[in-house]
Amino acid sequence: MLGLEIVLIISVIAIAFAAYLGWYVMKKDTGTEKMMEISNAITEGAKAFLKRQYTTITIFSIALSILIFIAYTYIGKQEIGILTSMAFIFGAFSSGLAGFIGMHAAIRTNIRSASAARRSLNEALVIALRGGAVSGIVIVVMSLLGITVLYLILGMLGHPVTEIPFLIVGYGFGASFVALFAQLGGGIYTKGADVGADLVGKVEAGIPEDDARNPAVIADLVGDNVGDCAGRGADLFESTAAENIGAMILGVALFPVFGIAGILFPLVVRAFGLIASIVGIMSVRTDGKEKPMKALNRGYYITAGLATVFLYFVSMDLLNAAAYPDAATYLFGAGVIGILASIAIVWITGYYTESDFSPVKKIALASKTGHATNVITGFAVGLESTGLPVLVLGFALIASYALGEATGIHYGGLYGTAIATMGMLSTAAYVLAMDTFGPIVDNAGGIVEMGKEKGMAAEITAKLDAAGNTTKALTKGYAIGSAALAAFLLFSAYLQDVGKILNLETVAIDISKVDVFVGALLGAMLVFVFSSFAIRAVGNTAFAIVEEVRRQFREIPGIMKGKAKPDYAKCVDICAQSALKEMVLPGIMVVVMTLLVGILLKWEAAGAFLMVGTISGILMALFLNTGGGAWDNAKKYIEEGQHGGRGSDSHKAAVTGDTIGDPFKDTAGPSIHVLIKLIGTLTLVLLPLFI
Amino acid sequence: MLGLEIVLIISVIAIAFAAYLGWYVMKKDTGTEKMMEISNAITEGAKAFLKRQYTTITIFSIALSILIFIAYTYIGKQEIGILTSMAFIFGAFSSGLAGFIGMHAAIRTNIRSASAARRSLNEALVIALRGGAVSGIVIVVMSLLGITVLYLILGMLGHPVTEIPFLIVGYGFGASFVALFAQLGGGIYTKGADVGADLVGKVEAGIPEDDARNPAVIADLVGDNVGDCAGRGADLFESTAAENIGAMILGVALFPVFGIAGILFPLVVRAFGLIASIVGIMSVRTDGKEKPMKALNRGYYITAGLATVFLYFVSMDLLNAAAYPDAATYLFGAGVIGILASIAIVWITGYYTESDFSPVKKIALASKTGHATNVITGFAVGLESTGLPVLVLGFALIASYALGEATGIHYGGLYGTAIATMGMLSTAAYVLAMDTFGPIVDNAGGIVEMGKEKGMAAEITAKLDAAGNTTKALTKGYAIGSAALAAFLLFSAYLQDVGKILNLETVAIDISKVDVFVGALLGAMLVFVFSSFAIRAVGNTAFAIVEEVRRQFREIPGIMKGKAKPDYAKCVDICAQSALKEMVLPGIMVVVMTLLVGILLKWEAAGAFLMVGTISGILMALFLNTGGGAWDNAKKYIEEGQHGGRGSDSHKAAVTGDTIGDPFKDTAGPSIHVLIKLIGTLTLVLLPLFI
Repeated sequence: MLGLEIVLIISVIAIAFAAYLGWYVMKKDTGTEKMMEISNAITEGAKAFLKRQYTTITIFSIALSILIFIAYTYIGKQEIGILTSMAFIFGAFSSGLAGFIGMHAAIRTNIRSASAARRSLNEALVIALRGGAVSGIVIVVMSLLGITVLYLILGMLGHPVTEIPFLIVGYGFGASFVALFAQLGGGIYTKGADVGADLVGKVEAGIPEDDARNPAVIADLVGDNVGDCAGRGADLFESTAAENIGAMILGVALFPVFGIAGILFPLVVRAFGLIASIVGIMSVRTDGKEKPMKALNRGYYITAGLATVFLYFVSMDLLNAAAYPDAATYLFGAGVIGILASIAIVWITGYYTESDFSPVKKIALASKTGHATNVITGFAVGLESTGLPVLVLGFALIASYALGEATGIHYGGLYGTAIATMGMLSTAAYVLAMDTFGPIVDNAGGIVEMGKEKGMAAEITAKLDAAGNTTKALTKGYAIGSAALAAFLLFSAYLQDVGKILNLETVAIDISKVDVFVGALLGAMLVFVFSSFAIRAVGNTAFAIVEEVRRQFREIPGIMKGKAKPDYAKCVDICAQSALKEMVLPGIMVVVMTLLVGILLKWEAAGAFLMVGTISGILMALFLNTGGGAWDNAKKYIEEGQHGGRGSDSHKAAVTGDTIGDPFKDTAGPSIHVLIKLIGTLTLVLLPLFI
Repeated sequence: MLGLEIVLIISVIAIAFAAYLGWYVMKKDTGTEKMMEISNAITEGAKAFLKRQYTTITIFSIALSILIFIAYTYIGKQEIGILTSMAFIFGAFSSGLAGFIGMHAAIRTNIRSASAARRSLNEALVIALRGGAVSGIVIVVMSLLGITVLYLILGMLGHPVTEIPFLIVGYGFGASFVALFAQLGGGIYTKGADVGADLVGKVEAGIPEDDARNPAVIADLVGDNVGDCAGRGADLFESTAAENIGAMILGVALFPVFGIAGILFPLVVRAFGLIASIVGIMSVRTDGKEKPMKALNRGYYITAGLATVFLYFVSMDLLNAAAYPDAATYLFGAGVIGILASIAIVWITGYYTESDFSPVKKIALASKTGHATNVITGFAVGLESTGLPVLVLGFALIASYALGEATGIHYGGLYGTAIATMGMLSTAAYVLAMDTFGPIVDNAGGIVEMGKEKGMAAEITAKLDAAGNTTKALTKGYAIGSAALAAFLLFSAYLQDVGKILNLETVAIDISKVDVFVGALLGAMLVFVFSSFAIRAVGNTAFAIVEEVRRQFREIPGIMKGKAKPDYAKCVDICAQSALKEMVLPGIMVVVMTLLVGILLKWEAAGAFLMVGTISGILMALFLNTGGGAWDNAKKYIEEGQHGGRGSDSHKAAVTGDTIGDPFKDTAGPSIHVLIKLIGTLTLVLLPLFI
């Protein structure tokens, strides 16, 4: 029977493989001196920001871990308090480390991909994806190892197997707490810089994107790394952690049926998902004629196919209960539903955000009648795009539940949904690699542009950048889908925990009770107000950048003629300060509001707060992510020469839509993924205070 | 003891008073021939649209009433089927009639208010408000009488008092079904015309708003009537009807305590609310120096104050149960909470949409850096504006529930929330008068502008128009607040009904069950996709108008020089056709989706669909209404000379924001109010199919 040994073995293999990928990337050349100079500026800026951001996060984390300890002590559960706050710190540290490593790899890869773009599309593509894969693999391995290590330590401390998953919850909370700040801070940074640079550069001064004369250009490139790499890394680190924990807690409920195999199952599935992803990553190459996106999609399908095969064998091995002969087959079916659902959501996201389909074309067409109609149409597309993914998620939940129930096992239905989540997340490492690919090639394009490389290099990075935009949109669809399923797992963990504490067989969250309904209302409200704060933070940061760039243009003569060098560092610094300042309020609001709802309205209202907050969050994130992606590509579609092309009035309207979409898709939307899971782990950890 | 007699007497008085107001308005002069000509064109256009719209609605209503009958027959409850479909038709007819009368009064008032504006601010204000009051009073009386008449008829047919409220549900469903189409069709019409006229007039041709050379100008003025008068009239007709029915159903649960008085209580409170509103309306006047808004607010506070006094006496008279000595006092307290909540929400809406406060100022400031920052900031303001009203609603629900529970009566808590709703809606007639005041003075301004009246008249109508914009925003806050509370009443009616059918003492909607959770997810999704369809419909209609106006400018030479008359009727016609076509899909989607969720996932999921759909609807409507209102006033603030004033780049950016806000605040937002109540009455009527 498969067990922890195989998880550890695969983890070691995966780490070795990530090291190999790192070595593969590092041995590539770093291009011209000019390119190196830009790359160094980006590296410096990113490191400086991360250092300051992590300092802030560390302070908050320590404060919160102390609070957790005090709260548990107050209710007389000091020992659990110690374990939970230790697990919290460990989760926070792991998440931070995962983000750091991912970003570290990305900022080393971008210049090498840029340099390779001077030679061949395939080489540039392969370098960028493999560099991104370092981050993807490390994140998944770390979430896997973190939980495995905790599991082993707690076992050695003498805690019974069925207790351990409840004690690991703090790990997920730590991970989501850091993820919220990483994604918020990074998201505010990247879009504050991007919007600010665009407003003052493209719109006011009329210079192209990534032009070296724009003092905010380095801040913009740094932003891609701290927002997309470190931010999304922390986001998916948390999804996998939350899913592992939620599924393990359910595994406890199924202990009488599967024994320890049910608890270890999620870890083993995740480990084999890593192998599938590694094969997928290595399979990506292009002959130069094929579009990069096609090659990346092929890799994804290979990963998903392999993951299905592995899932089959792991299910047959671990979920074979003599009393329930068909259980393994049914539960495998639930896992397949999860994999299919993730493919469907990625496809739907593509439909709404790629210029081959009608939604983006409609936005481009509406740009002909001006800024307002572009925005109205994009808004309508974003809202509409929530429909199909919700149907898919609803179907996946109900079908996987039904399959789980068909096993005849008590709690089988819920375990079915858990396995669907595992299925969806089994391709996580590949998806993360695709995602990190985005900012890497974006940066590579910037380096090529600023390094004044013309001809083939610019053409190739432009192609890769277009693919990167698509992957960034698709992976956001995947992230929200998996966040939704992981959140559902957290609900059932919450209910299991309530049942355990109150000694109830079944626990209901009856939303028709007035206090529970108000809890639900507040959960939905949190999502709206949180989004407001996130979006406004970008506006404020962009405003600060605009003022600074205007000042530099005014006070440093010769910048526009390319004779004087702008003060890049000053813009990087302003962005960092503003992002750190602005991430605090929304971050604290989430924690405080959850705490207040739980303490004042108690556990049932807190459950409704969590569930309806999650529902609103799923819809809002889908709307913001997809709307933003569609606006972005409508602009690109016009830039390809449609409706008057670059410089036309249509183009100006499309640039407005794109700018509006920036904080939607790269700050507020992704932060909501994290928000959802954070409320989930937070209510779980604080539950004893709510009863 | 007060009873049905007093309701009938007050209804007769109120009708007589509305007739007096109509007479008062009609005896006023109709200004110059030029003004009359414009007014006639508006009247013609509005009547033509209403005729076509009501034809479509009639067809749908008849079809649906047949479907209701068939469905009930299918489950073997033919008699209830007949009664419900008759009540449905009656409710639909009443709602349509109320909208028709309101609009009829408004289009006769606007020209008289315009003419009076040539003489005095006070006269123009008083005429406009009293003309609006005709609509407000008639709507409230009709919803009251409709239910009273049904109550009497069903009593005569031999149905026991405790059965009747369940049979009246069809009336509410009919009212909300018509309201949805009236608000959607009217909203699409008004904003399609407005946005289209602005895009091609203000932005492209550079002519002012309401300029007679713009072929779409009459369509724009017609739109104010069919959207704001007929639409919002149907909306609040439905709120009052839903509240009456929901409260009466709860009254049935309290029959053992209060007897028939508990069932009649909502009708009596409503009747006295009419008296309070009439006094409030008659109290409004200005010395010409005072801002019109101040006079209108004073009238509102007088109405609210009087309503509180009346509520006290009615509570003491009807809710005096010997076994529960403090019940009347506690329940009166719950009613006061409702009145205070409505004042708080109106105040908060004012804070977010009036240019005296920081949110609107921030949007205006953000216009300095362009279209995108204007939109981003307005978007953030709209999202943020959901926070405080939700806190107020949450507090009102919990506090009124607690007061109701303190009575010690079984179901007392729910009855407390019902009475809070009654308190909130007791000022409905006054609020409706203020609301209809908006389109009347908007039209008056248009008539003055197109009639080429200069000087004092233009100045006075501009002042009134500014007040009208504010009242429109405030009444939307009120409408969503009352929709939220009315919806909560509909939930409890739903649960009562489920309990009655299944013979259960308590009924729970357990959102942690997978199918119930999916129902909730789908409810939230419906709100997002519905909003998308509503917003897109405006875009499509505006697009058609832009094409037509461009054609007229091209093919009819001399329009721009004022030498040839544009073909106004053609634009009116295009708007009408497009609005009718576009309202069908979202309208049908609501009915079909509710039906499918109920039939496939059953009553508990349908309950969650209703509740979480309502929660999302409240938030989305608050966001859309307030965001739209804030953008509108940010533009006006700049037009008053801030940040460069009219014609500056800031102004252009602010016009973009205003145009985007148009379909938000006048189409999608108000339609969501109706949507919420429609799902409530729909699930209630179809419940037997869901079990």
